[in-house]
Amino acid sequence: MIDRSHAEALDAADPLARFRDRFVIADRDRIYLDGNSLGRLSTDVRDAIAVVVGHWGERVVEGWHDWIELPRGVGDRLASVALGARPGEVLIADSVTVNLHKLAHAAADHRPGPIVTDAANFPTDRYVLEGVARQLGRQYIEADSVEAAIDAARDGVLCLSHVDYRSAELRDMRAIIGSTDALVIWDLSHSVGAVEIDLSAVDLAVGCTYKYLNAGPGAPAFLYVRRELQSSMRSPIQGWFGQRDQFLMGPGYEAADGIERFGAGTPSVVGLAAIDAAIGLLEEAGFAAIAAKGRSLTELAIGLADAWLAPIGFSVGSPRDPSRRGSHVALRHVEAWPIARALIERAAVVPDFRPPDILRLGFAPLYTRHVDVWDALHRLRRIVARGEHRAVAAGARRVT
Amino acid sequence: MIDRSHAEALDAADPLARFRDRFVIADRDRIYLDGNSLGRLSTDVRDAIAVVVGHWGERVVEGWHDWIELPRGVGDRLASVALGARPGEVLIADSVTVNLHKLAHAAADHRPGPIVTDAANFPTDRYVLEGVARQLGRQYIEADSVEAAIDAARDGVLCLSHVDYRSAELRDMRAIIGSTDALVIWDLSHSVGAVEIDLSAVDLAVGCTYKYLNAGPGAPAFLYVRRELQSSMRSPIQGWFGQRDQFLMGPGYEAADGIERFGAGTPSVVGLAAIDAAIGLLEEAGFAAIAAKGRSLTELAIGLADAWLAPIGFSVGSPRDPSRRGSHVALRHVEAWPIARALIERAAVVPDFRPPDILRLGFAPLYTRHVDVWDALHRLRRIVARGEHRAVAAGARRVT
Repeated sequence: MIDRSHAEALDAADPLARFRDRFVIADRDRIYLDGNSLGRLSTDVRDAIAVVVGHWGERVVEGWHDWIELPRGVGDRLASVALGARPGEVLIADSVTVNLHKLAHAAADHRPGPIVTDAANFPTDRYVLEGVARQLGRQYIEADSVEAAIDAARDGVLCLSHVDYRSAELRDMRAIIGSTDALVIWDLSHSVGAVEIDLSAVDLAVGCTYKYLNAGPGAPAFLYVRRELQSSMRSPIQGWFGQRDQFLMGPGYEAADGIERFGAGTPSVVGLAAIDAAIGLLEEAGFAAIAAKGRSLTELAIGLADAWLAPIGFSVGSPRDPSRRGSHVALRHVEAWPIARALIERAAVVPDFRPPDILRLGFAPLYTRHVDVWDALHRLRRIVARGEHRAVAAGARRVT
Repeated sequence: MIDRSHAEALDAADPLARFRDRFVIADRDRIYLDGNSLGRLSTDVRDAIAVVVGHWGERVVEGWHDWIELPRGVGDRLASVALGARPGEVLIADSVTVNLHKLAHAAADHRPGPIVTDAANFPTDRYVLEGVARQLGRQYIEADSVEAAIDAARDGVLCLSHVDYRSAELRDMRAIIGSTDALVIWDLSHSVGAVEIDLSAVDLAVGCTYKYLNAGPGAPAFLYVRRELQSSMRSPIQGWFGQRDQFLMGPGYEAADGIERFGAGTPSVVGLAAIDAAIGLLEEAGFAAIAAKGRSLTELAIGLADAWLAPIGFSVGSPRDPSRRGSHVALRHVEAWPIARALIERAAVVPDFRPPDILRLGFAPLYTRHVDVWDALHRLRRIVARGEHRAVAAGARRVT
């Protein structure tokens, strides 16, 4: 049996414990385990938004003298703090959807083969890729597994998630890239801010900033293009923020030299300020510590699931090897949907549900404590043992 | 001679005068005439941003139960208050660049001919259209004038700005649509929030929210698709916010029924809240009053330019008929660039410069007074009469 004092001891030794106080946590009894859908608000981000809104008020259009550098500047900071990428390789822009659309188009110019992903990949990635394939008259393949996708990709374009949004499986980017002639685009949405990332072997990537980066609902996304590839890649969306000399406003589009060529329209300045502040928190915490804490939290959750939940119908749907896992845990149960509702409505625990049978628990390292893990799984055990979830009617659907 | 008391009398009779106090105006001596590049911050928008950030803090992912409706809900409000469009025809999403990319692709499915605009159209529009034409293997035509563009468009796709970003010329959308077989996409960026718009004859449009709508730098844009066209139009960017049953996360993309099919990735919730508050101000002011005040301000500016500026080398580059003009005025002068710099650096007036010879003065109706027009043109006359602009070195470039 794992005692609560064990969780308390882990928290007492946690070098990141003090970061919890940097987040706005309104209801102290509620345990939020959905930071992998939408991360919490930090006071840093809240204040940064107020400051940039103030700058807009004071400087109005003159503010652009500084703001214009943000898509690349904040991208560089993200590259350094969380991505293991070089300056000039990351741009903050648009959404994951739009960025993947751009990179899939650009990648297809480099490879003649099919456009491939796995059927379990995140829906918007699959939708985007299918659309790009149709536009280009390419074969689109949605393979049954990541391994089958790698086989099918041949000399085409392969898109995979670094961390699977349901199982939390963490893929070995370097090994996969080394095993294929396809050009691989990585979706880092479920890994960035939670696990250590090294893009040095990676050609193309996209990712979001509102999960473990905590930059807010709908904050802009990022894209990464390896420096050596940039000059030969072209965005299908030719916008003025991708133009070489934007304010010359001259005739004819000429793509900017560097990563800026993947810009499109006017970026959200408020979003950029939020991301910058959010990265500041990660930088302060240090990435090794963040990733280690994520492993510790998920390890505790799996230990408790084995001890308490396996006897009442749960199985662990995430890798048991912590080096192969992101910062969330999938617990499978045939009644996962009403169990998720009961947790929210009766136990003040916020999980996520993924069809058909996954209760997904996200453990954002910066603000989740080991006692939160212990308490949440304790409440989960009680709900299911008492059959309370059977009394809960199916409610509204949830949002990632 | 137009006396300052005339401007004061116009302000005394201005039904919108009280709205100036709803905006954050830090430097009371500075006259801001670039609201057609970036509108001012209102306290309404500032407060709405703080409120929605607070909601994020309190509700975290549960906030999406309300936020999910915003792209269409705020779109409906914009449609009603400022666009003369019906419910379900306007969506807040992405940037003007990305939205025009979507609509140009969708429009090209409906017309076999060339993709056409005029060479004086806003740069990002021209860049996007050229890119779409190349992707689709269509002819791209950049005509010498709007009239030539209409002639060239034949059975193709025509994109025009409702108000020209340099000359302020306001085009008659209904007459142009009636004169062509092309499918016309209107860019409303320089008209929305300043002039009365009636989209009842219009098929497709895009526009931005950070100029006369005052929703903030890089706030999301909008797109409009006439209801009857929606089911036959398809976005080239297939994202989960355009999917019929987004949270089913099922296999295969199926476009949503209505305007939502033109959504892509996760929208900026902060941006949506800002736009909603910004529309509230317009609604309160009333569109007839806003448009009338814009005409009154520009009429005064043109009168003063004729009286004071024509003798020192200026000519009016905007239509003299107020019903054919947006809410800004182009003043042409061979030394427009150093004059613009001198106004900013020595006269506390913020204009805009557009190559090669345009000094662009924007008169945002909600917060610009007639005395601001009078004072700004008075300072402008003095600067040029004294040759002060010749002492000003060319500085950094400016941003629209």
